[in-house]
Amino acid sequence: MTITLYDLAGAEEDRRFSPYCWRVKMALAHKGLPFETVPWRFTDKEAIAFTEQGLVPVLKDGTTTVWDSWRIALYLEEAYPSRPALFEGGQAMALTEFFNTWAFRAIHPAVLKVVILDLFGKVHEKDRAYFRASREKRFGMTLEAYAGEPKQAIMALRGALEAIRPALVQNAFVSGKGPGYADYILFGAFQWARCVSPIRLLEPDDPVFAWRERVLELFGGFARNAKGYPVWA
Amino acid sequence: MTITLYDLAGAEEDRRFSPYCWRVKMALAHKGLPFETVPWRFTDKEAIAFTEQGLVPVLKDGTTTVWDSWRIALYLEEAYPSRPALFEGGQAMALTEFFNTWAFRAIHPAVLKVVILDLFGKVHEKDRAYFRASREKRFGMTLEAYAGEPKQAIMALRGALEAIRPALVQNAFVSGKGPGYADYILFGAFQWARCVSPIRLLEPDDPVFAWRERVLELFGGFARNAKGYPVWA
Repeated sequence: MTITLYDLAGAEEDRRFSPYCWRVKMALAHKGLPFETVPWRFTDKEAIAFTEQGLVPVLKDGTTTVWDSWRIALYLEEAYPSRPALFEGGQAMALTEFFNTWAFRAIHPAVLKVVILDLFGKVHEKDRAYFRASREKRFGMTLEAYAGEPKQAIMALRGALEAIRPALVQNAFVSGKGPGYADYILFGAFQWARCVSPIRLLEPDDPVFAWRERVLELFGGFARNAKGYPVWA
Repeated sequence: MTITLYDLAGAEEDRRFSPYCWRVKMALAHKGLPFETVPWRFTDKEAIAFTEQGLVPVLKDGTTTVWDSWRIALYLEEAYPSRPALFEGGQAMALTEFFNTWAFRAIHPAVLKVVILDLFGKVHEKDRAYFRASREKRFGMTLEAYAGEPKQAIMALRGALEAIRPALVQNAFVSGKGPGYADYILFGAFQWARCVSPIRLLEPDDPVFAWRERVLELFGGFARNAKGYPVWA
């Protein structure tokens, strides 16, 4: 059986920046499952119409179709129990569910504020009007107004990361000694930035920087080798 | 061996409101370990001078002395491995460490803002000057200024809890199907309020309300029976 992932792409087909697709790609690599990706753009709604919704990641595994990154993670864990675990049991899964919400609410908007204009510059020509209209409706302001003052946005992101620093001083990964799905949740946000923007989000002496380096090294540098900007971005 | 906990008390000896002591009491109950408490006030620094620091909880277990609620939790888990686990393995422990920081940064200040003046009204007469001076120094303003507008403080707390709601819609406890140390971390903040203030923090239709009810029921209503205000507070 072949696993296929519909993966958001930019103007260049090999620029794959979706944070949610990165979660899934890291989860697939964690489980050692080979997969193929189908480049997908925001406006390719028909290509995934079989899911009756309009967002990626969408995963096809043989005859099974799953969408939504969290549901895909749960699916992979259940379908491939003999592969390395994304969750070390029910307690870790419940706590990762909280971590998911925290990252979505505290980290994703802070990263997006820093990179939104660089991101807009990388989306496919055919997606630009859709991207601007949908995001400006969500933000209630123009992309340019949302971006605001870059230095301030970076400081806000570094402030939001304060909640994870003590744990990353104690442990190599968000999930403890080794990486787990919670790591891929947080990493997705950084990889989103790294794939579209040269802006330096973290100082090298930040424990989050060292953690991100560790995740970039996983699976033979799988995420580091993706099209994007250098390690320190 | 007897386990003894130095437990913060108010003007009334049986009013035990410290959120950090509640974490430990719930952890001890979770492990089914009998313990005695020693009522302690903020200014009783000499009584715990043997720890070379000035804060409770302080736990004495035979010849072992441990302080700091997180270190006490780790100690109990290691010293009593055959008792019910507070952490379901290393991944859950690392994620709970993050949860600890989140609760400390996002929830504790929000709860404190709501109940600070009620709390001040319950501390022992001999502690009042210490409490006011130390807190006003920390806040950079008077207790009254910190408290601000009660309705606004309650709304801010309910907003901060947004991060935990989706997980508590899915799972009975923060830790999943059953309670774990992460539950006692969050619960400590609510019990802090409940022991000193009649203010209603949560609406009954809030999933956090239902979760708190479940924790109040644990161990034969151990926390519910503590001196404080009714269930809905």
